Amino acid sequence: MGLFGGIESGGTKFICTIGIDSDNLLTEKRIPTTNPEETIRKVIEFFNPYAISGELIAVGIASFGPIDLNPDSQTYGYITTTPKEGWKNVDLCGQIQRGLKVPVAFDTDVNAAAIGEQYWEKDKRLLDPFLYMTVGTGIGVGVIVNGSPLHGLIHAEAGHMVIPHNWQRDPFPGSCPYHGDCLEGLASGPSMSKRWGQKPETLPDAHTAWDLEAEYLAFALVNLIYAYSPLQIVLGGGVSQHAGLIQAARSKVQQFNKGYIHSSMIQEKIDDYIHLPALGNRSGALGAIAMAIKLAKKHIEIPKAV
Amino acid sequence: MGLFGGIESGGTKFICTIGIDSDNLLTEKRIPTTNPEETIRKVIEFFNPYAISGELIAVGIASFGPIDLNPDSQTYGYITTTPKEGWKNVDLCGQIQRGLKVPVAFDTDVNAAAIGEQYWEKDKRLLDPFLYMTVGTGIGVGVIVNGSPLHGLIHAEAGHMVIPHNWQRDPFPGSCPYHGDCLEGLASGPSMSKRWGQKPETLPDAHTAWDLEAEYLAFALVNLIYAYSPLQIVLGGGVSQHAGLIQAARSKVQQFNKGYIHSSMIQEKIDDYIHLPALGNRSGALGAIAMAIKLAKKHIEIPKAV
Repeated sequence: MGLFGGIESGGTKFICTIGIDSDNLLTEKRIPTTNPEETIRKVIEFFNPYAISGELIAVGIASFGPIDLNPDSQTYGYITTTPKEGWKNVDLCGQIQRGLKVPVAFDTDVNAAAIGEQYWEKDKRLLDPFLYMTVGTGIGVGVIVNGSPLHGLIHAEAGHMVIPHNWQRDPFPGSCPYHGDCLEGLASGPSMSKRWGQKPETLPDAHTAWDLEAEYLAFALVNLIYAYSPLQIVLGGGVSQHAGLIQAARSKVQQFNKGYIHSSMIQEKIDDYIHLPALGNRSGALGAIAMAIKLAKKHIEIPKAV
Repeated sequence: MGLFGGIESGGTKFICTIGIDSDNLLTEKRIPTTNPEETIRKVIEFFNPYAISGELIAVGIASFGPIDLNPDSQTYGYITTTPKEGWKNVDLCGQIQRGLKVPVAFDTDVNAAAIGEQYWEKDKRLLDPFLYMTVGTGIGVGVIVNGSPLHGLIHAEAGHMVIPHNWQRDPFPGSCPYHGDCLEGLASGPSMSKRWGQKPETLPDAHTAWDLEAEYLAFALVNLIYAYSPLQIVLGGGVSQHAGLIQAARSKVQQFNKGYIHSSMIQEKIDDYIHLPALGNRSGALGAIAMAIKLAKKHIEIPKAV
């Protein structure tokens, strides 16, 4: 029986999953993100019995970033300029590949989530190009064009776009260590905690925080719609799940667009156009498994591999 | 001998070109943009002798927008919600196709310019994905991913993205009839004319207008880099040509990025990374010819056509 591994590497934990497909998962383990040596060693230990038995065909890694995705680069597979303490310039992909000796697919957590939503959906509603935006500890954007995540100089880092910041309404300077008041600096979960002195999940629905949050997300969504012209948008991440937030953001998108992009998807069917992830908070982990399966399929075409 | 036609349809003129390739142009005519009936009739009259003689193989149209690019739509090939008087909901592509009875390729002026820069370049410097941003009468962005322009719900409309607007420094409310102070509303040629009471080309190099313009363009460029992660950016359009502007915008891009995207293209080789168009102000017209040639090549593969 062929098994596939998925690793969702995050700033607080690595979620390691083994399964045949999204409905048939064998086992899952959460490994706390400490230092790279210890964390990666524990990840390898978890998968190793399945690699040794020959059952593990391939592994997909859905990583926090920025990461190096250029196959010609000497640092391909590395986590690069992350603000996460101790994790700058870590060869995540290479260490796992050498440890397990199976093919490893590597991409950002948000590209993986986008792949997961597309690969595992049963009703094939997701049209291409589409994008997945996550709003949680960080803000990230994954983009699928012609069935593949958009890669270039690196990968989309649209969570750090600049948006209008009304200092009179919102004197909070932003929390991004690089940019201050970029989108992530103004609208991520930690930025909300800092601004309001309490975690977003404890802020009541009527709190002004949610109107401000909807405004920032709508600025971002309009910019993403104008940039990519996606056929669908999936809004994931912990903050996005807050009751009423996606509805408020949708209305503000219509309001900011002012009819400029004239499409029934925006004017009438915006509830379909911008929707929550079908896989809930499992998009990343199941996306990593989908990446492993897709990679294995590619390898199977080459006779010598797998 | 096979000839190809290029039409660059703009708000003030239609530039019609006939040629074999970018180095061998036969003739060119500028037709003023009046009402759609008269303008399109004159365009057809210009190309018609070559269509009747059988020499004209295909035509490419590089159009102002927004336009409908969905092949399944009843209004495919139409100019849709343009603010240009009299040109809303005009079947530009269909009328020309029916008038000339040759295959017609249709895309935005900026996507065409991007195609032109890629198709006609001799030293193959342009890496994929790359983008073409024009800053002139309007602001537009064309994006090439895997050799093709990015199409989705419609096409990129990133000229209308929102960016930070410091009202204290710049109390001008913006000139976009849809959004007010979006990028185009703050940084297009007409917005500069309105803000400063004189045309941009008459503003001296030392005028504060240029520092403000560089700042707005740099905000836009950073957002585009974060969104698409392009391997190269071509900055076209009349305003971009102003002496010193591209250099100022490049420095501000480095400054705003604050080392977040860690790439030698941004840190060291930004003069290569963001550059002026090799075809100068001919990218659109020559891009339209390239579109016609690419379309003809596709048709040749299907035995019955051409």
